[in-house]
Amino acid sequence: MQITILGGGGFLGRKLAARLAHEGSLGGEAISGLTLFDLHAPPGIEAPFPVRCLGGDVADPAQVATAIPEGTRVVVHLAAVVSAQAEADYELGLRVNLHGTLAVIEACRRLTQGPHASGATPPRVVFTSSVASFGGGQEARLEDDARQLPGNSYGAEKAAAELLLQDASRRGVLDAVSLRLPTVIVRPGRPNKAASSFVSAILREPLLGLQTELPVPEEFAVWICSPRRAIDWFLHAMAMDTTPLGLDRGINPPGRSATVGKMLSALESVAGPEARALVRHAPDPAIEAIVGGWPASFTAERARRLLGFSEQESLEEIIQGFIEDDLTATRAERGI
Amino acid sequence: MQITILGGGGFLGRKLAARLAHEGSLGGEAISGLTLFDLHAPPGIEAPFPVRCLGGDVADPAQVATAIPEGTRVVVHLAAVVSAQAEADYELGLRVNLHGTLAVIEACRRLTQGPHASGATPPRVVFTSSVASFGGGQEARLEDDARQLPGNSYGAEKAAAELLLQDASRRGVLDAVSLRLPTVIVRPGRPNKAASSFVSAILREPLLGLQTELPVPEEFAVWICSPRRAIDWFLHAMAMDTTPLGLDRGINPPGRSATVGKMLSALESVAGPEARALVRHAPDPAIEAIVGGWPASFTAERARRLLGFSEQESLEEIIQGFIEDDLTATRAERGI
Repeated sequence: MQITILGGGGFLGRKLAARLAHEGSLGGEAISGLTLFDLHAPPGIEAPFPVRCLGGDVADPAQVATAIPEGTRVVVHLAAVVSAQAEADYELGLRVNLHGTLAVIEACRRLTQGPHASGATPPRVVFTSSVASFGGGQEARLEDDARQLPGNSYGAEKAAAELLLQDASRRGVLDAVSLRLPTVIVRPGRPNKAASSFVSAILREPLLGLQTELPVPEEFAVWICSPRRAIDWFLHAMAMDTTPLGLDRGINPPGRSATVGKMLSALESVAGPEARALVRHAPDPAIEAIVGGWPASFTAERARRLLGFSEQESLEEIIQGFIEDDLTATRAERGI
Repeated sequence: MQITILGGGGFLGRKLAARLAHEGSLGGEAISGLTLFDLHAPPGIEAPFPVRCLGGDVADPAQVATAIPEGTRVVVHLAAVVSAQAEADYELGLRVNLHGTLAVIEACRRLTQGPHASGATPPRVVFTSSVASFGGGQEARLEDDARQLPGNSYGAEKAAAELLLQDASRRGVLDAVSLRLPTVIVRPGRPNKAASSFVSAILREPLLGLQTELPVPEEFAVWICSPRRAIDWFLHAMAMDTTPLGLDRGINPPGRSATVGKMLSALESVAGPEARALVRHAPDPAIEAIVGGWPASFTAERARRLLGFSEQESLEEIIQGFIEDDLTATRAERGI
């Protein structure tokens, strides 16, 4: 089967590509080819199947169509402008997060329903939506049918894109699974423009021996997941039977609600008090205004009981996972 | 104040324009000019202020910008491709219902935040969303925070547009009030491509002495409002204080839940059994598949108690209103 990863050069895209290369198959079927598409062509990877690496604009329908050739069975759409950046640059956020998704729908429609359509099975589209598409804040513990009332442009664009993907699924244009990802920790690399960047930084930077700042109080709770679990969820969403989803293509996967204080305690238990001491309190109202609106918890019953998405590890296991998977590469990348 | 009505040539747009011309003011302030924009330039109207009539494409940002000139204080965005048509022509629905709203946002952004912006107060944008943006069906009685999970493209496009307008309001680009209109009865003119067209037809056609078909059973319930009340709601939404709305710009106005059987009884009480006898049962699964998914009832507490939207009349008053306001013109238009 042919697979395309849009945003294939990003942190999760690269991990997913590596995992696919390692497995060689998906849902018991051999992978015949993989396309990695990002703003700049992602580096090639070793794989038991051909890998195409393309650079381009996800909001340009023609370029996205090239990235989703005839025969594509699965598209993983990770390409996005992150929260603080979408807030700062409205046009860019709309362009990538909304028009990018419209381009994906258009590309799939060309395959399944266009004038030259091959009558193919609607491709599975795994879309990364976000916890930021909800409101509710620290007090919230959202049910699966909670309304998306986002307090940030990134979340609004993601929620709008979900609606369009859900409708395209109903029409048989594609077969969407929209995962509202929790805040993924521990992200490797450097701090980025996501408002939630600090949630990874307070764990990653001390593990690198670097000081970092905590912009919110320690009792601040965040709905999180690990990169390992995010990849497990993607693989599950890429191959699962979507019949039980019916009309509702939005899934709140089983993340974990944890306070920043608990994360720092887990850091201390894994890496000692000297690691924790590298985290300095530096309140930032702009960051808190964005992340403070995101719900701190979900019931996630549908994903857990009906749809078979795997549970989250403990905070200690999440930190250990970063040390095993990403610490060395992050050191090298940052010259530490 | 300058006002623009997009979709100003349609049934509700013309009624609203006539009402504004009659009143001469809105919220105690004199109207200084009115722009009516539609696919074809709407006919001019008599008014105590200048009226511009423009024809154009609501999905073309340049044309919409022309329709929303500097100094515009209120935009009423009624331009839409209706439900059955958006279902039949996916591209057209997306273009008008989604990209049309994006063009409105862009035009308002040029006024308030663009490089040549005058720093104007964000214009009020009254957007007609729809009951079709919800699911739930006959059993539903939806709360104000119900999730929009539409089972039709029209509803998905409207719900996505609401999200984008809500976000643009939060950003100070505009000041949106999105009214999820019930099925408006009795519509004048001819049957149209809305899946709900029959709800008006079963009352209008008999009043014209014509036979008509009922595609659903008599116990089928619909969430309805009258044209008179819809216009009252528009006027209220155009001038209301939006502070109590906060982030949530979507409003379920206080419509009425009525079965088709009750509507036919009201028809009989107003126009006699011979009128009712003109309605013939002719089940249509395609129509029922669309309208059957729309919720039959809403609590509408927020609109009613917090926001001051007016209540619905009785079914008999709604029918009487059609006879008084629209029957003669409909006869003339259709040469009956």
